Amino acid sequence: MTKYFRSNVDAMASYVPGEQPQRGTQIIKLNSNENPYPPSPAALAVLHNIDAEWLRRYPEPFGEEFRQAASKVLGVPSDWIIVGNGSDELLSVVIRACAEPGRKVVYPMPTYVLYRTLCQIQDADITEISYGEDYSLPLEELIAVNGSVTFIASPNSPSGHVVAMDDLRKLASQLSGVLVIDEAYVDFTEENALALVKEYENVIVIRTLSKGYSLAGLRLGFGVANPKLLHGLFKVKDSYNIDAIACAIGTAAITDQAYKNACVAKIKASRTKLAIDLKKLGFRIWESQTNFLLTQPPAENAEYLYQKLKEQGILIRYFKQPGLEDKLRITVGTDEQNQALVEALIYLLEIGSRL
Amino acid sequence: MTKYFRSNVDAMASYVPGEQPQRGTQIIKLNSNENPYPPSPAALAVLHNIDAEWLRRYPEPFGEEFRQAASKVLGVPSDWIIVGNGSDELLSVVIRACAEPGRKVVYPMPTYVLYRTLCQIQDADITEISYGEDYSLPLEELIAVNGSVTFIASPNSPSGHVVAMDDLRKLASQLSGVLVIDEAYVDFTEENALALVKEYENVIVIRTLSKGYSLAGLRLGFGVANPKLLHGLFKVKDSYNIDAIACAIGTAAITDQAYKNACVAKIKASRTKLAIDLKKLGFRIWESQTNFLLTQPPAENAEYLYQKLKEQGILIRYFKQPGLEDKLRITVGTDEQNQALVEALIYLLEIGSRL
Repeated sequence: MTKYFRSNVDAMASYVPGEQPQRGTQIIKLNSNENPYPPSPAALAVLHNIDAEWLRRYPEPFGEEFRQAASKVLGVPSDWIIVGNGSDELLSVVIRACAEPGRKVVYPMPTYVLYRTLCQIQDADITEISYGEDYSLPLEELIAVNGSVTFIASPNSPSGHVVAMDDLRKLASQLSGVLVIDEAYVDFTEENALALVKEYENVIVIRTLSKGYSLAGLRLGFGVANPKLLHGLFKVKDSYNIDAIACAIGTAAITDQAYKNACVAKIKASRTKLAIDLKKLGFRIWESQTNFLLTQPPAENAEYLYQKLKEQGILIRYFKQPGLEDKLRITVGTDEQNQALVEALIYLLEIGSRL
Repeated sequence: MTKYFRSNVDAMASYVPGEQPQRGTQIIKLNSNENPYPPSPAALAVLHNIDAEWLRRYPEPFGEEFRQAASKVLGVPSDWIIVGNGSDELLSVVIRACAEPGRKVVYPMPTYVLYRTLCQIQDADITEISYGEDYSLPLEELIAVNGSVTFIASPNSPSGHVVAMDDLRKLASQLSGVLVIDEAYVDFTEENALALVKEYENVIVIRTLSKGYSLAGLRLGFGVANPKLLHGLFKVKDSYNIDAIACAIGTAAITDQAYKNACVAKIKASRTKLAIDLKKLGFRIWESQTNFLLTQPPAENAEYLYQKLKEQGILIRYFKQPGLEDKLRITVGTDEQNQALVEALIYLLEIGSRL
């Protein structure tokens, strides 16, 4: 089949997303960092008021209604906002606009695996630089590469740590290419990098409604950047990338900050409790400003625990990657879900210690 | 700003989609080939039964539910189907998987303007070959180019004509690259090219729910091809490109063939009537197997008529392109909408003849 595809596409492996069990499956799903609480009632109410006319006609091409709502919430003009079919689409749009063979894309590892996949699709020159053992940013090395695109997920996955604003500012000011700050988990952090887009025209902050707003099934993300930067990205995005329903539901969801903040507060409290419970079991826990925890089980049995939990209907995430083979990424669920996980782990660890 | 973007992206113009007036605007919209009738009641019923859980969780990555439903309707196995965020996304996926600088993409002109835009984004080598005056396919020239990708819209826009199956079969058998048969308007035709995907592994037939199924606002399209061909395309598509709501609504819509067929029958009858009425006004009309008509006004005033109709709240499509400056593309609306258009044209042509 090599004749049909570009050689880089032939050579690459597919991106493997987190397991998504069928609807209706009885499972505790703590593997892809979904919010355990439903979306805002205001967003759900929109569903019941969707006009057939919205479906019949092409949508507004830029998600203008959502841009206006996001503009008010974020305090940036609406023409500083680009809307995507999930933030994944926007990451792809940046790569397609800015990267190609001979242009470098750089990011610290481990991080969101999709960055590599997007570069492989585009056949860009990939430079991966390891985080320090304590997830300290390899700042000087990133600056030295000076990529056409530099990806920084902050908070990062799977580590859960936030990159310091000072470091992000140094990157923005010293890179001549585009700095993508992927803030998928920003709703769970204490600070964010939005201010940098006003200071530096090469910075785009990308966010999603999949996490804080409980809308992973809707596919809605957005980027904030100087319109000069957005101009090139708008050329590359599909003309009608945002469907009319997603735009309307997303608008209601981002407008209802109180509901989102209440969910986030619950998740943060559960995160604290889960971290304490796992530490009691001997897990090492990395500090997280997200809705998940990177953890290291007390024995070198991460993959075993992942498998055994899965057999019991509890899904968490195991990455068979350098530096992660001995770790597990656990989404913070409701207190009840987290308790079920902890109880299952107690049982598994006792079994393990008796073997 | 050239430092941020690839030079081909800097050099290109944005794709300009058809005008999409704001919701609620009182307008007769005959410019982007939407279906004038609402989507299937079964599809609308789905909207009121969407579970919050579908929104909270990531969607199934391949639109499996829709694939199963489409499989039954089309009589092809579900693993021969790829689902996209509108057929536009699938056209983009094919280009990203198969085209690059030094690989040729070829298509007859005039046709869907997006093909050129997608090639420009990818920096592929574009070969455009003019249709004959009577829209006869430049078959030998297309074969001679032997592109990595050959696009054939059938029925074609803006001409409305169907490419003969014999010609498509000759292309499929003689090209070594991928033949994309873009059947966006297939619901209005007498025959279709689906059988070719079983005969030739280099053929993908791409369809949309935007036209026959009245779901332009939903963004749902699909492609049918040999799984060997789909394998490479799946690598390139976004992992969660289909949102859960679109998948559920699209499933209900494609299952309700009776409703779609009834709408199509009404549109075809209106098309016949509109063509007769326009011919009476002296318009030249090209035979159409779509839900639009390519027309040539009796005087050389196509752009004038477009503008004047727009002032009166009737939107049709004018393309300022070689071979199209003297023509107008008119979507077939309801009989009432078409009548309003014809009456407006009578007035404008009388005014024009008195000047």
